Amino acid sequence: MEIFLDEAAISNLEKRERAALINSITGFKSLNLISTCNPNGDTNLAIFNSVIHLGANPALMGFIIRPDSVERHTLSNIEETGFFTINHVNAENYQQAHQTSARYPSEISEFEACQYNTAYKNDFIAPYVKGCSISIGLSFQERIDIKLNGTILVIGKIEQLYFPSDAWCDDGYVDIEKAGTIACSGLDSYHLTKRLSRMSYAKVDKNPQETVLKYKD
Amino acid sequence: MEIFLDEAAISNLEKRERAALINSITGFKSLNLISTCNPNGDTNLAIFNSVIHLGANPALMGFIIRPDSVERHTLSNIEETGFFTINHVNAENYQQAHQTSARYPSEISEFEACQYNTAYKNDFIAPYVKGCSISIGLSFQERIDIKLNGTILVIGKIEQLYFPSDAWCDDGYVDIEKAGTIACSGLDSYHLTKRLSRMSYAKVDKNPQETVLKYKD
Repeated sequence: MEIFLDEAAISNLEKRERAALINSITGFKSLNLISTCNPNGDTNLAIFNSVIHLGANPALMGFIIRPDSVERHTLSNIEETGFFTINHVNAENYQQAHQTSARYPSEISEFEACQYNTAYKNDFIAPYVKGCSISIGLSFQERIDIKLNGTILVIGKIEQLYFPSDAWCDDGYVDIEKAGTIACSGLDSYHLTKRLSRMSYAKVDKNPQETVLKYKD
Repeated sequence: MEIFLDEAAISNLEKRERAALINSITGFKSLNLISTCNPNGDTNLAIFNSVIHLGANPALMGFIIRPDSVERHTLSNIEETGFFTINHVNAENYQQAHQTSARYPSEISEFEACQYNTAYKNDFIAPYVKGCSISIGLSFQERIDIKLNGTILVIGKIEQLYFPSDAWCDDGYVDIEKAGTIACSGLDSYHLTKRLSRMSYAKVDKNPQETVLKYKD
């Protein structure tokens, strides 16, 4: 059977039920730890499922922040220092990653509270997260305030990128499934993945073709 | 071994290799067909992996569009009619969905070219996609031009929502894995998922807890 909800029915749902519903129906989401520090070097770590690709040249990524949430420390650190890191959550550490969403006070680092270790690499100001298979260091580029609901799109440019060599394919694709990256749905559901296939570039006059992954290594 | 690329190394990659690399490192992405029509009722269908959750009250979703791509028909239809639908891609139809990314001319509907059928529901102007387990009808709210690279964030408000009743959990979460929704990585890699667990709301003074899914049905 199919459920049909119109705008009024959605509005009338209890607040937490509506949040769980609307957060789940966008489809699967990326799962990343965003790590920052304040100008004194005090670290902060928060889990985000809204990281998106914005462009490859220049290499831009963005994420959505709700300023009334625990994420506010992430935003103020990015605005004050100009840098942040994005780190993929893996199956081995997703429960710790989830725990970073608890409302720790600003003087407590989620690194300590959630048993993560910092990794400082190649003079990058913001710390990376030890144990994450893929890590990206970004410089803050722009903050776009979405007036419709007070959320903020934060945009960064990739300055540094780390990933396992055995996951790199000869056409540039990084096999993030092989690297152990996991996916998220809703606010709190964590998922392993299993590749169906990669598809070749779609052309008007050809049927869809599966392609074989070839690794550089 | 770990690969390290800095900004210069990324810039120096061949164009398609850089696109494949940067598109894959954001993590897993949602996979949706966005369906529109022009004021004459001519339909258009395009695959997007950039749909994101923006807020639950009002229920807002967004997606990123590159105006120099095949996606330009989607944008002009949304701006002219004010409506669009977002439809989850399932394992049964992902190869067809991929094929919608071929550069069909504007007078050809991807519905026909890729063997999809339209479904018109509850007087909604934009067509839904038959065979997709979860479908969302949205009204156009705002277009935000991202000047850094010419991409556009399109924001819609949920007006109608359709999903299978046996996937709805008692706390509001829709089990999109049970509904057959799949995930995407990079530009062309399609993935089934397998739930690790759902986690309870994180609290500062408690260790992370797994929760059991309870369906309404």
